Amino acid sequence: MSRAINLAVIPGDGIGQEVVAQGLKVLSAVLPRDVKLETREYDLGARRWHATGETLPDEDLESLRGHDAILLGAIGDPSVPSGVLERGLLLKLRFAFDLFVNLRPSKLFPGTATPLEGRPDIDFVVVREGTEGPYAGNGGTLRTGTPAEIATEVSVNTAYGVERVVRDAYERASARPRKKLTLVHKNNVLVHAGHLWKRIFDRVGAEYPDVTTDYLHVDAATIFFVTQPERFDVIVTDNLFGDILTDLAAAVTGGIGLAASGNINPTGNFPSMFEPVHGSAPDIAGQGKADPTATVLSVALMLQHLGHTEEAARIEAAVTADLAERDAVRTTDEIGDALAARVAD
Amino acid sequence: MSRAINLAVIPGDGIGQEVVAQGLKVLSAVLPRDVKLETREYDLGARRWHATGETLPDEDLESLRGHDAILLGAIGDPSVPSGVLERGLLLKLRFAFDLFVNLRPSKLFPGTATPLEGRPDIDFVVVREGTEGPYAGNGGTLRTGTPAEIATEVSVNTAYGVERVVRDAYERASARPRKKLTLVHKNNVLVHAGHLWKRIFDRVGAEYPDVTTDYLHVDAATIFFVTQPERFDVIVTDNLFGDILTDLAAAVTGGIGLAASGNINPTGNFPSMFEPVHGSAPDIAGQGKADPTATVLSVALMLQHLGHTEEAARIEAAVTADLAERDAVRTTDEIGDALAARVAD
Ligand SMILES: CC(C)[C@H](C(=O)O)[C@@H](O)C(=O)O
Ligand SMILES: CC(C)[C@H](C(=O)O)[C@@H](O)C(=O)O
Repeated sequence: MSRAINLAVIPGDGIGQEVVAQGLKVLSAVLPRDVKLETREYDLGARRWHATGETLPDEDLESLRGHDAILLGAIGDPSVPSGVLERGLLLKLRFAFDLFVNLRPSKLFPGTATPLEGRPDIDFVVVREGTEGPYAGNGGTLRTGTPAEIATEVSVNTAYGVERVVRDAYERASARPRKKLTLVHKNNVLVHAGHLWKRIFDRVGAEYPDVTTDYLHVDAATIFFVTQPERFDVIVTDNLFGDILTDLAAAVTGGIGLAASGNINPTGNFPSMFEPVHGSAPDIAGQGKADPTATVLSVALMLQHLGHTEEAARIEAAVTADLAERDAVRTTDEIGDALAARVAD
Repeated sequence: MSRAINLAVIPGDGIGQEVVAQGLKVLSAVLPRDVKLETREYDLGARRWHATGETLPDEDLESLRGHDAILLGAIGDPSVPSGVLERGLLLKLRFAFDLFVNLRPSKLFPGTATPLEGRPDIDFVVVREGTEGPYAGNGGTLRTGTPAEIATEVSVNTAYGVERVVRDAYERASARPRKKLTLVHKNNVLVHAGHLWKRIFDRVGAEYPDVTTDYLHVDAATIFFVTQPERFDVIVTDNLFGDILTDLAAAVTGGIGLAASGNINPTGNFPSMFEPVHGSAPDIAGQGKADPTATVLSVALMLQHLGHTEEAARIEAAVTADLAERDAVRTTDEIGDALAARVAD
């Protein structure tokens, strides 16, 4: 547990600014007085790209590396071609800092809306691989723009990369009351990558006899997400399947406004990065309409990662209480104030 | 409209046998007397593989090629390693017969259960590419089983393959009352394949000014499938995204027991293949518990493809009426009988 937190803040685009401000407000309120919080803001995202053409220059990357953690708001703007900021900034950070555990908890808090009938009891965590698979950026086009064009995307999967994230997922499953781990892949079609995942999943599983295991194809998993989400405890999956499943998970647990995530390198050799799952939502940016709860919950994940378990639990309790009592529509700022007041108590 | 149908039947594994029998029962009942139905059954699937080691020998493939259409039950059994029958039989048929339009309608019939609150009005069609993308079977492993193993999967996308399926989707959208087409991909990450799809989607769209278009990332699409499924009319997407989305679509529209599909080659150079989206469900095989409705609806898609539009409509009407009145639990056979009786009226 650190007595000082040297935090990098990347507000980014759209509602990123607004929600990050509330995340920092709650962070300041929850930290004990003797923990020193230092923050440095980085101007990265659409504005910077328009101004300089840069997405993430080496000197920013070097400087970011020196922080204890990174809090990120949201990246992306319609004025920037699709992929430029995603690949050049967000994914670049995940890859450069080897953030291989993309942790995404899904919980249906009392008082929140779900599109599912009967309000099933949802409380699971997706451990999404964060540094390889179809996100490797390996691919290209030939004869671009002609009728003979061909475009490829190569999913790269290594025993090294799969084993470390699978092991992390077993550790997390083993520490939870239900101790259940589900591997999601598509090993009946993607036989090379899928069998690699399955073999390693089975082998590492032998070291965790207390953990019950299960395998689902990704298509079948989406069915269970809406018909039987209570069956899941911890899920481990590849980068792309994890991307898809966690948006669906957010949708059934109160929406993307509540979904938090951590991009974690458990070795501590690099700063881990915490961000809401939602995007920059340019349509509502600057209007005080964005729900900062996902960012605040991401701050809780960060505190947990940094060893401030008690403060993390206080944030989660504050969010739980706040959601249970929400009635009137409140602004971004009002929600942040309410949460800050609760954690300060 | 053909006066004779020379149909290949592949019952396959598990519940495949049971549901195909009902599909054929309804097909016989709906066809006018002067349309001659000839069927030939092919013994393909787990039993054959165990007996001979064969999945789809050349002579079967050649013989299948001579039929007007193929009706397939389900493929797969836990006794066969994952991928053997999927790649060696089901996908081999889709690829060998160049079945590039994998058509999957999703409709919430009155009287059927949905896990979604408020029973949204769901009636859309997914046009899933069927012959390339991550399903190309292009990939491999190096140093298999060692800590230095690497496994790749290559998604192969061609202008040729994308354009023809996109064009088919525009045709279908243009023929529907709402005339709306949504492209689903992940072009902010899979920039090579994603931009190829998007460029072709936009270019072909210029020829269909009456069709409204939309683009969604696959992760966002899953959110709308559960929060706003009524926004979709026709969706066109790649092979893997289509696989995932159509299982989710089935889950929100009464379950996988109702989801029909056609693997279509619109040129008519090869027989098209029709199959329920569900699998072989070995846990309930042989018990008369399987719902044959998805297979019966797949027969309707087949009749439509073969020009028997009126008969196809009669099957859909029979299913609609049957679902609206279902009360007691019925066996596979009873449901088949009820549907056959309705279409014969
Ligand atoms: C913005 C995009 C690159 C990103 C991803 O695909 O990982 C997002 O969808 C997410 O889930 O964090
Ligand atoms: C069985 C499997 C190979 C198949 C697929 O992935 O296409 C199935 O899931 C489907 O959707 O038809």
